[in-house]
Order: sequence, then structure tokens, then C-alpha cells
Amino acid sequence: MTKVQTAGETDEKGEGFLKSIAIDAVIFGFHDNQLKVLLIEYKGTGLFALPGGFIKTEEDLNNAALRVVSERIGLEDIFLEQFYVFGDYSRYNPAQFKIIMSANGAVPADDHWLLKRFISIGYYALVDFTRAKPTPAAIFDSCDWYDLNNMPPLIQDHTFIVKKALNSLRSNLDHKVVGLNLLPQDFTMGDLQKLYETILGKKLLRPAFQRKMLALGILERVAKKWTGGAHKAPYLYKFINETIDFSSKP
Amino acid sequence: MTKVQTAGETDEKGEGFLKSIAIDAVIFGFHDNQLKVLLIEYKGTGLFALPGGFIKTEEDLNNAALRVVSERIGLEDIFLEQFYVFGDYSRYNPAQFKIIMSANGAVPADDHWLLKRFISIGYYALVDFTRAKPTPAAIFDSCDWYDLNNMPPLIQDHTFIVKKALNSLRSNLDHKVVGLNLLPQDFTMGDLQKLYETILGKKLLRPAFQRKMLALGILERVAKKWTGGAHKAPYLYKFINETIDFSSKP
Repeated sequence: MTKVQTAGETDEKGEGFLKSIAIDAVIFGFHDNQLKVLLIEYKGTGLFALPGGFIKTEEDLNNAALRVVSERIGLEDIFLEQFYVFGDYSRYNPAQFKIIMSANGAVPADDHWLLKRFISIGYYALVDFTRAKPTPAAIFDSCDWYDLNNMPPLIQDHTFIVKKALNSLRSNLDHKVVGLNLLPQDFTMGDLQKLYETILGKKLLRPAFQRKMLALGILERVAKKWTGGAHKAPYLYKFINETIDFSSKP
Repeated sequence: MTKVQTAGETDEKGEGFLKSIAIDAVIFGFHDNQLKVLLIEYKGTGLFALPGGFIKTEEDLNNAALRVVSERIGLEDIFLEQFYVFGDYSRYNPAQFKIIMSANGAVPADDHWLLKRFISIGYYALVDFTRAKPTPAAIFDSCDWYDLNNMPPLIQDHTFIVKKALNSLRSNLDHKVVGLNLLPQDFTMGDLQKLYETILGKKLLRPAFQRKMLALGILERVAKKWTGGAHKAPYLYKFINETIDFSSKP
């Protein structure tokens, strides 16, 4: 939760926001055959976290999640899915947030709304790495992509939230939205296979993978350009019908 | 949300509960080849709703959901899954809750915590119909099973919540937990097929269904009892290893 991010905009009672509820966003990108996740670092603390935020009093929950993610990557057309609500009492750690808030100026009062217990609604986002522009807020030292296998320690239960998001992504892997949102518009069968292998964390057999993908009827071949020496360039594919529901609404 | 259920236990500020967050439970049972859902009726209003409740200040979210469901059906070992968070601003309807609360006694003040906007975390529960004991709270006129295809109109967006829960159940149908929790311990292949047909809302081919189910390796045949004339009684099956995670924790 980027609690501090909004702290400056509100009084200590959090006027204008729903209380007790936060959003945490696991933003996945795919690059160099690695699945990446966007992390922020709170200024002057060395503490890393997932991007997050709160819901305005008259704002739809899913729109709030879209706003939180858009602010960090500068895109509006984002595939977003709720995947789990994190609500164990043990995740409540006001001391850690007191450090974060204090490092950014005034020390908050003990009854500050941001130091109370929050339940966090987890969303994962799938974004085209090549189009996303990681954008820190004023109270961050950084906002960057990290390899899933090489993340710094995260505050609170954020490492667990990433793990849970990855599991949800894996069980939704049959849907073309995964490939559609993590790959550029045109890609090779090899690119697609590497994406699946990366998400699943295991090698797949090339012929079986290609057969299965083509059988789904969701890919079309992009006309090959004649490029001189590129006789052996692999076919490029794209997804048929790029209309998907970005709103994540039911 | 059975907002009124807890209203009597708290002051107007809702001391002891997290604000803005409710739980709504879609409790599925299976009986007479029908999928049933448990509904409550608020006393003196004719208004029907899903069972629901709130999270205590130091209570885990999933434990709160378990408590909410247990109180209505008198069982502790319940399969519970979060399936969606309902957070559109348009679902906010304080007038309806004012009617419900007023019908039960004192008219609530306009700034009563239960008349503020809530975001609701949807859980579905799968329970053995034969073991569940629907139990109304004092402020309900009734607490009963209804056929999914024959529900009364529900308050707020509760009909949509049921529909969304059913969709989630359908997409999780590969898991044995569905059969394990909706059927009695011993059942026939026909019982199992009817359960799947009911959830999916379509007929399945008997031989293919049986083959697929047996291939999963999750069923074992129960020794047939010799019952005189019952030469043609179908085989009974049960699920191998009934250990499942009732906590719904990750």
C-alpha cells in the first residue's frame, strides 16, 4: 500500500477515502524472457513495496485500481483482475508505516487513519513492457521493474501477495488475455512459448505447444515481409480480434 | 449484508468492527438434482438477501466469513472461497437498509455506520445439504434454501452476486472439492453426473463423463452391500482422501 502517497492529500481522518480498505497492485510485464514486476521504493527508507492506493468515497473499486496502476505506468488500457483479498490480522504492521510516513516529513499521530488496520484487495495487471513507463510518485526513491526471481525483500506481506498473484496468473493461463497483454502486437511462436514457460516455470515441448496454440483458433499469421537474407525468419503471429474487456467488470 | 444482525451489538459508530467492509456469502447446497442457495428474509420487510456480516477489529477476514456462514447453517467444516469483491459506487443504497433497520425497532440516525457505503467481499460456500441446518437470526423472518432458478428478488446487487458466484463455481468445476462438498459421503456416478449437469446447466454424455471422472483417480468404489433384491443397485463411490483445506487460506 502506498499509504503515504495519499497521506498528504487528506487529513488525519482520511476524509474523502473509504477507511480500512487498500488496493495492492501486482503489475506484470514480460521482457527478455523474464517475467517482471513493478516495485516502488519509499523515499529515504530503503523499503520496497507494491504500488497501491485507496478508494475515493464515490469511486468504483475497479476504477480505483485502474487509477492506481495507471499512475505508475502511464497507460490507460490495462488488463486488470482482482485475485485475492488479504485480510489476516497478522499483516497489520503500523510500526513499518510509521517509519515510512516519518521519513517523508511530519511524524503521524498514533490514531492517524493510515496507521489503522487495512484489508487489501489484490489486483494483478498484465502490461506490455515496451509501452509502460514506470513513474515514481514524489515520495518514492524509485519505481522500477524487477525480475520475479530477483526481487528485494518487500514490506508487510507483499512478497506473499506477488506469489499469490503468480499462482492466479498460472491458473488463468488458458486465456488468451495473458499473451495478448504481455506480448507486443506481433510475436513469434517462440516468443509465445517462452512467455508460457516463464509463467509456468517449466519447459514445454515445442511441437505440442505449437499444435495446441494453433488449435485454439486465437492466433493469426502476420504476412511475412521479404527482407533479403531473412529467408529463415520465423513466422510472426498476432491475436485475432484484439477487443478485450479492460475494465475487469463482471 | 445482514447489516442489522450486528447493528444491535454495536453503537452507531460500529465500535469493534472494520468500517466500510462487509462479507456476503453465497451458500450452495445440492438436493433433488437442484442447486440451492441459502437466503434470509428480514423481519417484517419481505426483503430477501444473502447471509452476510462484518469483520471484527482483530479477526482474520477468512475467519469472519467462516463465522458468518457457520452461524446460518450450524456447520464448522465448510468449504469457503473468496470469488469477487463488489465495489461499485452504484450498489450503495442506504434507503433500503434504513427500511430494514427501522422495521426492527429504532430508526437509525443518518450517519449510522451501517448506512455508509460498504464494499462487499463475496465468498461462496459449498455445503452438504443433508447436514446443514438453516438457522435464522432474531431479526430474520426466515432462513431457507431456494432453488437457484426460483429465487425471490433480492436486495441491492445480491442477485448479481449469486450469478457471479455460480460462474466462479463453474470455472472451478475441475476440482474435486465441488463434488466433495456438495454430495453426501457415498454417491452414485449418476448423482455425480447430475451435480455437474446442474452446475453447468447442460446435459453430459454418460459414458464420457464416467470415463473422465474415473480417469481423474479421485474416486474409489464403496464395497457393495448385498441387499436382497438390489442386484441392479448402482455402484456407490466416495472421494479418495477426504482431507481438504477448509480454511480457504492461501
